[in-house]
Amino acid sequence: MKCSTAINLMISGVLVCMSTAIHAQTDDNSTSSRIEPAILETANALIDTALKSNLGYEIVESLTTEVGPRLAGSEAEKRARDWAEKLGDSLSFDRVSVEEFTMPFWDRGHLHISLTQPYKQALYGTALGGSAPSTEDLEAPVVYFRTVHDIQNINDGELNGKIAFIDGEPMVKSQTGAGYGPSNQKRRIGWQHAQRGGASALVIRSVGSDSHRFPHTGMMSSDNNNWATIPVIAISNPDADHLRRLHELNKTMHLSLHSGSDWQGDVTSGNVVFDLVGRDKPDEIVLIGGHLDSWDLGTGAVDDGAGVAITTAAAELIARLPHRPRRTIRVVLFGAEEVGLLGARAYAAQHAAELNNHVLATESDFGAEKIWRLRSNVNPDANAVIDGIGRQIERLGIVRGDAKSPGGGPDIIPLAAAGVPTVRLDQNGTDYFDLHHTPDDTLDKISPEALAQNVAAYAALVYIAAESEAEFRLPKATEDKE
Amino acid sequence: MKCSTAINLMISGVLVCMSTAIHAQTDDNSTSSRIEPAILETANALIDTALKSNLGYEIVESLTTEVGPRLAGSEAEKRARDWAEKLGDSLSFDRVSVEEFTMPFWDRGHLHISLTQPYKQALYGTALGGSAPSTEDLEAPVVYFRTVHDIQNINDGELNGKIAFIDGEPMVKSQTGAGYGPSNQKRRIGWQHAQRGGASALVIRSVGSDSHRFPHTGMMSSDNNNWATIPVIAISNPDADHLRRLHELNKTMHLSLHSGSDWQGDVTSGNVVFDLVGRDKPDEIVLIGGHLDSWDLGTGAVDDGAGVAITTAAAELIARLPHRPRRTIRVVLFGAEEVGLLGARAYAAQHAAELNNHVLATESDFGAEKIWRLRSNVNPDANAVIDGIGRQIERLGIVRGDAKSPGGGPDIIPLAAAGVPTVRLDQNGTDYFDLHHTPDDTLDKISPEALAQNVAAYAALVYIAAESEAEFRLPKATEDKE
Repeated sequence: MKCSTAINLMISGVLVCMSTAIHAQTDDNSTSSRIEPAILETANALIDTALKSNLGYEIVESLTTEVGPRLAGSEAEKRARDWAEKLGDSLSFDRVSVEEFTMPFWDRGHLHISLTQPYKQALYGTALGGSAPSTEDLEAPVVYFRTVHDIQNINDGELNGKIAFIDGEPMVKSQTGAGYGPSNQKRRIGWQHAQRGGASALVIRSVGSDSHRFPHTGMMSSDNNNWATIPVIAISNPDADHLRRLHELNKTMHLSLHSGSDWQGDVTSGNVVFDLVGRDKPDEIVLIGGHLDSWDLGTGAVDDGAGVAITTAAAELIARLPHRPRRTIRVVLFGAEEVGLLGARAYAAQHAAELNNHVLATESDFGAEKIWRLRSNVNPDANAVIDGIGRQIERLGIVRGDAKSPGGGPDIIPLAAAGVPTVRLDQNGTDYFDLHHTPDDTLDKISPEALAQNVAAYAALVYIAAESEAEFRLPKATEDKE
Repeated sequence: MKCSTAINLMISGVLVCMSTAIHAQTDDNSTSSRIEPAILETANALIDTALKSNLGYEIVESLTTEVGPRLAGSEAEKRARDWAEKLGDSLSFDRVSVEEFTMPFWDRGHLHISLTQPYKQALYGTALGGSAPSTEDLEAPVVYFRTVHDIQNINDGELNGKIAFIDGEPMVKSQTGAGYGPSNQKRRIGWQHAQRGGASALVIRSVGSDSHRFPHTGMMSSDNNNWATIPVIAISNPDADHLRRLHELNKTMHLSLHSGSDWQGDVTSGNVVFDLVGRDKPDEIVLIGGHLDSWDLGTGAVDDGAGVAITTAAAELIARLPHRPRRTIRVVLFGAEEVGLLGARAYAAQHAAELNNHVLATESDFGAEKIWRLRSNVNPDANAVIDGIGRQIERLGIVRGDAKSPGGGPDIIPLAAAGVPTVRLDQNGTDYFDLHHTPDDTLDKISPEALAQNVAAYAALVYIAAESEAEFRLPKATEDKE
């Protein structure tokens, strides 16, 4: 046994690590001195208000109903920005702005895919983001790969005239979503090997934890900014099971497919920014947000209408307090997240000069189930304040996670990379990848009660962070003090 | 208070109905004398064998994998008959035959349907069986009807140039499937009113209890053998919710659709019949079965690959006993059930001369969840035997339902109408209408354990019915003795 800190005692020959207890006591003392009781009282009242409010649900209902699917760069995403501008104006924000940027537009077009040998059967598939069209109606025999690792061993040209199919293992379900990364490899890089092998197309098992007949779309990774020149299609898990069973029966399989997906040149996208200007330190920004774009198959309720709704509603509830918090609260509804964090990168570039004034940032982009954990990555001197926030939202069923979790959400990555401190309120992701990037991501999947819990947690977190004097930013050059 | 039978007592001025208790006691006495202990012992052993056997699952896995979807009248349904013939030959049946019949073929063709106003959004829809093609790409404003009752009040011609949309209430979920009938009215007769009103097409909320983006297909009712001359499309429940919300926001909605579904003339279908010839009374037939056809969207695992598998496996386990039961056990795998019980009607017509020798009939066509109830409609003198069967399968979690339930399953209707006695082993249908007639009816939805429970119950029931001397048939002319 070994203690990770210096403080320990030998009692009757047994090593007793005291760090936790002593540390907790320190927290209690320091936090009570750091978060003023009045702030905690207001945060508590915000939680009560949020739990009774339907505002979050109304926002996501409006977005999904009045705008619908919002593919990055499409006219639908433009309508979403118009919707967001109108929403911001109708709420209590002090500034509403649209910050445009240019991006390459990939459009799905029409797809059909079917099994043609050993018999004809329609498959439920969808093109992956960044994939190329088929030049003609394609019909070819299938070469089966059990996993993405297997296709990495092929020789160049070995798949000429064939369609590669990468199966895979069932995705592990968990509240952290830990199964996504490993499962996603076939979506990310599978095409590079299929194309190198000369395949006419690549078909993969969807990256998803459900067993429904929905394909999961999503972006592939580019190969040094080169995209696939072949169609790359994800089929539903039951369809992949079907091909696996036929393969195990040694049946020769042929697929026919036609994909119209392609890059369409540069278009305009944008981020929509809502500000509640701080009464005391208007230049210091607590940034929260979600992303406004969605994949085009569903209506983007869970991914990420929920994040838009949660963070906007939390800020609005704070805006209805008698006065603005000390710091500015900024809600950023990012554009073009799904296709490579393009809005997030544009935001970081356009706001490069003021990133040092971003004192804390977080995004809600992991669905709409209840939040179960608070993690952070801030100046260690301010951990006690985050711990205090954790105690404040404990009654919402939220536990305090570790204080060394870089992140804050996908669109926060460019900010975190520039040194902006982050926190994260983790939604329970157990079922998130059942819906993720499928046609089934629709409003009916959101529980108003769970959404209200999210709004309550965000409202308390953001209010305390903006109202307190805590310095979350890391001192330059001594980022890892301990 | 009133007793429904003659046996009652006045005790201290309170009427006490004695029928239940006395009847139960009578059952105990009579049954033990009616089902020989050796028969019960064998039935018990069959249950044990079935619970350990994977045969049912292997059959439905083979059907769904090696044949796939099996639309009535299609070449796929022909391949299913070939598959069934081969299966029957490979198992222990004494006779395997295919009994063909002629039927009109309706084919789905290609469909696209999308919202075009207030914005463009793809909808997830499917044509209903018997619906007509659109003559051209159709785009028209939507007239919203809250329920099927509302559209019945329109005037002729009132819907000229419009697309009618019938919404509806959420389908009630229950283990009996009681919500299906009321919910199904819009699918059955909605088109007659839309067409009378002059609508260019009818769109309905799917008849299904799920909230997934799957449309539920199914046959419409003809109007005195006249079928719709307009396209009739079911959209998924989330899509219907979406249209409802837009309607409630007073948005003008337009839909665009193209349907290629149409009648294609007469084709050949058929029933496949497996017989275990009775050792003592070969002419007396205990008939069980399922239907071989499926809708074309899924692979017909639950509807009704499961029924094919359960009844075939149950008969096969009986066939593996040292000798045949006294009576013939016949497994009928009906063709063309989904499109109007065409195989069942053909069977009844082709076997009209021997229907009086059908001593008992039942079908499994309500999915693959565990059986929870046994109902019957046989000669009351034989109720005690059915009760005895009920006690035998009680350990499978099955309760005895009432003894006056006409039915036996959809394909048994023509037989029951001709006076054939029936029993029914009711599967728990709580989730059945989540999958029913959708693309999501695939093998992964079947639990091997639940399927084995079904096989066990069927094996015990069918074995006892075929081995016992019980007379289930009603005496002619005194069908309702009591």
